Amino acid sequence: MDSKTIQVGVIMGSQSDLPVMTDAIEVLKYLGVEAEVTIVSAHRTPQRMFDYASQAADRGLKVIIAGAGGAAHLPGMVASITHLPVIGVPVKSSNSIDGWDSILSILQMPNGIPVATVALNAAKNAGILAAQIIATFDPKIAENVKAFKLELKEKVEESAQVVENMRF
Amino acid sequence: MDSKTIQVGVIMGSQSDLPVMTDAIEVLKYLGVEAEVTIVSAHRTPQRMFDYASQAADRGLKVIIAGAGGAAHLPGMVASITHLPVIGVPVKSSNSIDGWDSILSILQMPNGIPVATVALNAAKNAGILAAQIIATFDPKIAENVKAFKLELKEKVEESAQVVENMRF
Amino acid sequence: MDSKTIQVGVIMGSQSDLPVMTDAIEVLKYLGVEAEVTIVSAHRTPQRMFDYASQAADRGLKVIIAGAGGAAHLPGMVASITHLPVIGVPVKSSNSIDGWDSILSILQMPNGIPVATVALNAAKNAGILAAQIIATFDPKIAENVKAFKLELKEKVEESAQVVENMRF
Amino acid sequence: MDSKTIQVGVIMGSQSDLPVMTDAIEVLKYLGVEAEVTIVSAHRTPQRMFDYASQAADRGLKVIIAGAGGAAHLPGMVASITHLPVIGVPVKSSNSIDGWDSILSILQMPNGIPVATVALNAAKNAGILAAQIIATFDPKIAENVKAFKLELKEKVEESAQVVENMRF
Amino acid sequence: MDSKTIQVGVIMGSQSDLPVMTDAIEVLKYLGVEAEVTIVSAHRTPQRMFDYASQAADRGLKVIIAGAGGAAHLPGMVASITHLPVIGVPVKSSNSIDGWDSILSILQMPNGIPVATVALNAAKNAGILAAQIIATFDPKIAENVKAFKLELKEKVEESAQVVENMRF
Amino acid sequence: MDSKTIQVGVIMGSQSDLPVMTDAIEVLKYLGVEAEVTIVSAHRTPQRMFDYASQAADRGLKVIIAGAGGAAHLPGMVASITHLPVIGVPVKSSNSIDGWDSILSILQMPNGIPVATVALNAAKNAGILAAQIIATFDPKIAENVKAFKLELKEKVEESAQVVENMRF
Amino acid sequence: MDSKTIQVGVIMGSQSDLPVMTDAIEVLKYLGVEAEVTIVSAHRTPQRMFDYASQAADRGLKVIIAGAGGAAHLPGMVASITHLPVIGVPVKSSNSIDGWDSILSILQMPNGIPVATVALNAAKNAGILAAQIIATFDPKIAENVKAFKLELKEKVEESAQVVENMRF
Amino acid sequence: MDSKTIQVGVIMGSQSDLPVMTDAIEVLKYLGVEAEVTIVSAHRTPQRMFDYASQAADRGLKVIIAGAGGAAHLPGMVASITHLPVIGVPVKSSNSIDGWDSILSILQMPNGIPVATVALNAAKNAGILAAQIIATFDPKIAENVKAFKLELKEKVEESAQVVENMRF
Repeated sequence: MDSKTIQVGVIMGSQSDLPVMTDAIEVLKYLGVEAEVTIVSAHRTPQRMFDYASQAADRGLKVIIAGAGGAAHLPGMVASITHLPVIGVPVKSSNSIDGWDSILSILQMPNGIPVATVALNAAKNAGILAAQIIATFDPKIAENVKAFKLELKEKVEESAQVVENMRF
Repeated sequence: MDSKTIQVGVIMGSQSDLPVMTDAIEVLKYLGVEAEVTIVSAHRTPQRMFDYASQAADRGLKVIIAGAGGAAHLPGMVASITHLPVIGVPVKSSNSIDGWDSILSILQMPNGIPVATVALNAAKNAGILAAQIIATFDPKIAENVKAFKLELKEKVEESAQVVENMRF
Repeated sequence: MDSKTIQVGVIMGSQSDLPVMTDAIEVLKYLGVEAEVTIVSAHRTPQRMFDYASQAADRGLKVIIAGAGGAAHLPGMVASITHLPVIGVPVKSSNSIDGWDSILSILQMPNGIPVATVALNAAKNAGILAAQIIATFDPKIAENVKAFKLELKEKVEESAQVVENMRF
Repeated sequence: MDSKTIQVGVIMGSQSDLPVMTDAIEVLKYLGVEAEVTIVSAHRTPQRMFDYASQAADRGLKVIIAGAGGAAHLPGMVASITHLPVIGVPVKSSNSIDGWDSILSILQMPNGIPVATVALNAAKNAGILAAQIIATFDPKIAENVKAFKLELKEKVEESAQVVENMRF
Repeated sequence: MDSKTIQVGVIMGSQSDLPVMTDAIEVLKYLGVEAEVTIVSAHRTPQRMFDYASQAADRGLKVIIAGAGGAAHLPGMVASITHLPVIGVPVKSSNSIDGWDSILSILQMPNGIPVATVALNAAKNAGILAAQIIATFDPKIAENVKAFKLELKEKVEESAQVVENMRF
Repeated sequence: MDSKTIQVGVIMGSQSDLPVMTDAIEVLKYLGVEAEVTIVSAHRTPQRMFDYASQAADRGLKVIIAGAGGAAHLPGMVASITHLPVIGVPVKSSNSIDGWDSILSILQMPNGIPVATVALNAAKNAGILAAQIIATFDPKIAENVKAFKLELKEKVEESAQVVENMRF
Repeated sequence: MDSKTIQVGVIMGSQSDLPVMTDAIEVLKYLGVEAEVTIVSAHRTPQRMFDYASQAADRGLKVIIAGAGGAAHLPGMVASITHLPVIGVPVKSSNSIDGWDSILSILQMPNGIPVATVALNAAKNAGILAAQIIATFDPKIAENVKAFKLELKEKVEESAQVVENMRF
Repeated sequence: MDSKTIQVGVIMGSQSDLPVMTDAIEVLKYLGVEAEVTIVSAHRTPQRMFDYASQAADRGLKVIIAGAGGAAHLPGMVASITHLPVIGVPVKSSNSIDGWDSILSILQMPNGIPVATVALNAAKNAGILAAQIIATFDPKIAENVKAFKLELKEKVEESAQVVENMRF
């Protein structure tokens, strides 16, 4: 893979977020979007976070997905430095209060610096949303997203068949 | 304006959401992005919602911004019908419980159907985010977003001057 | 069973909701009310949802029970399309934040489109409520509901006997 | 009016709930459903509550709408005594904690005794829901409910016109 | 035991509350207060609840401890019928939302009808509080409560010894 | 008044709590119970709090009512020092987060040290509860409490008359 | 004043936080601690925030007080860059959800990077805490803090006098 | 170790808090700060708490770390008695409601009496914060804190290496 084609950067505050964030990487791959993945901690590696965010656009990235838990500052801080759209994934980490801290510290960004927040632990949706953004200018990815939605529909129809045939 | 150049649709569940949603329209205009605005209620005009969402991509829209309050189903339902990225604005409407219902019913979408959620009442951030998405393929809008961020910085620096010169 | 006698439709957003929703089906059967059951996803099969809701009254249904979790739009969207009473069951699904999102996105419907919401995971109560509605015009079901309430009372009296005879 | 035709009883825990509960009475009238209204306090007049609930069905009522705030026991206690469907309206009274206590003490009924709960202060929706229940056996009320939904749609379409013609 | 000496009635809405409520019975026994225990469900046996509460004072009870979960109406309804002090124990039952519904529906009683609420699942504290109330007129129980508080202190001092001698 | 007959001490953490706590003093007076009132701050006058609590029983008090807001430690700390029953009134003070902090820091006492908690700002109920406790050994106060409950009932019946005669 | 003697830096994310943060500046002055004040926005001036935090210790500051609202990243990000103790003041700004977002995004820092969080809007307590920290090595400030606590006590005693002399 | 060199006192309300609070003791040791540890219960040993807090400064302590759960009064009460900085650790104990009660009863201290609150169960951060306070006047500890922050950074960089080399 030519590194210049990588369009989505997937970052997370800690390796412990990887089991959640893997869903983003996998769905991006499934939808045909090239992505890179690494660890960037706002609190333990602030300079590394600064460098990653400020170089992202020049490196050709189009979207950044950032996942973090607890007082989750990574998505918002990256959004403050880059002009790329940043998708935030609130992670229900072990030190989180049922996820409320992760959600509120990602979602409630002040005017001027949006973070596109998805549901708690919804890294898969972050990947789909990144693909939808790429799809606004890439017809091939648009086709992939449409096909993906069709599959969702078909799976529901199949399960409907199963349930309708059950005896209660 | 040629209607084909309209790239962002701004919709809301009720005219009472307009004072909040106006911020999205204004910032889009400021950032040079053409937008349209109308009322679409998921609950009172479900067919209209269906039609709007299913025709949006063919009409040339690239992003939809949807604002709603209380049990806010509009952003999620639009996202279920179109493959375009949908930005959801939780509105703290009069029938909302401090905004929690608006936030949770927009944010907590199931896997497969993301909504890019912004902060409570943060229609301005929804507009900026839409511009950032357009900017992924439109260099002119990218320049506008970068300039906007620079202005934010300068305003803070000015207020810092003011405060540092205060006497306490 | 003659399909024309089916009076209650039990639908849910995903087959994963079935372990909760089964309680509705069973109590309806116990109370002598004919019911059908299937999967209808507001987000993954919006057209199917539309069709189900718009045809329900003509098909002879009197009440619809809809269960969903997270950003649970199914009950409210069905209620927006049909004029039948819709009972909503907030399901504490795996992607729900302790059930709060499910509850608020079902309960907090805007004026004009009510959903009769029951407690979290309380599919059994949804079934009983549906039977109570049927009972408003069907004396036989009314007798069954009254008998059911008597049984509840007798079970408490029995457990009171047991506890009063315990030694502490 | 012949008192035998009264089909819905609207009760509330305190006269201070009347400004909220009036919406139920008015929409019932608008939809052609005969209703009665009185004050019944679970906590200050438990015997009166008992009598009201146990006589309601024999008096010809088909549905009871009960509104209360704070630790709101009225809807659930009435539901425990009658076999009629009971619609609960959580009222954000002055002693309520943002309405959470009212909601939870009405919604979270144990298995066996459902209360059809509507949104906070949503007495109007309670009235509509009661009419929908009456409509399951009264075609005239069904027509009224359908016409009401049509009006909701037309009002949204009108406001859409207004907003689309605005200049931003 | 002479039944006339029973001073505290311990009741609960369901036998499933017994593992929690046992703590009240045991600490009352430990503190020398005679208690009785039974099941009284506000929702499934409203008449039994009525009878229990209205006869309690005449039967010689001085205090009633009532535990319940979810939409917990038992303590408040008993308090509405008797003039005895009622202690409410919010039980985190299986159908409760982390206990918030139990707490709010017991604690937030309207003016006129207090319930002395203790912490979630704190049946032991309910028993101690009942003993403290009995102790206001019974010097022997007062001595027992004082001795109990001394034991609490001594246990902390012992554990302090243990921890101070640990090596970290 | 002979100071020896004072049976209830009403204390609060700050004079700013007085508008709320006055309700306790007035209802105690109405019910014929002698009370004293003063300011005792757990945080700003810990020694005064210690002295008040440790001398209360010897001074003849039977019950202590303590109101406080925010991180409200006064009721619990007083309960830790005296063996008298302590009634806690969570006050929604200006520095409180909608009252949640006041409620939780009073209600959630550890096993061994109960505080009889009443609803947010419900100083009136604290006064009634104190009278109910005095009434367990004072028949005259018991009669007053019963009469008070009768008045509550009559006021509801009067308001029911008013509402039933309204035209909607 | 010699700028080298400045020991506490008071920063905030926006000039709109100044009415709250002024309390910190004033109490520091009252307690004899030299402080500076300016605006530093984590989101709108990330580089300025970086510079301020990384130079603070070398400039002689001993403690930093940082106030911010909504998704409040300033205190945590400053704490990630400096090794000085950072005190965080959650500000209930206009875009905050009752302050919960401000509190959780400041308080819930991950292991390794503490922020000393004070109560919502409690800038005064932040100033006192900073003085207590300075007092650990500066006996004069320690005396001032002790005197301040004495004044708190005396004010309570005075208000106790006032209340005890009231007639109810 | 000479007891006079002990600078941090680590106390907790119950031995059951030790598994959480051990993190504070260990990180203090790692950072070269001498600490002592014991059990002090505000509610079960109020006099012991009083003595500990009032003697702490004279015994040479510079900082007190206090952990407690539920209605956690220990940190605030200790802060009311001593003029030393007090760090509060909200412990998610078994009787806590998801930690909210512990957090709010420690964090929401009234003006005048701050507690430096850290995240739920974040005893490690309490230890680091105590070291940071000691470091304001002890250059050796300052070096240790800086080295500790460097280690945090290096661990993230290592995990970034690992993740970047993974195959998805």
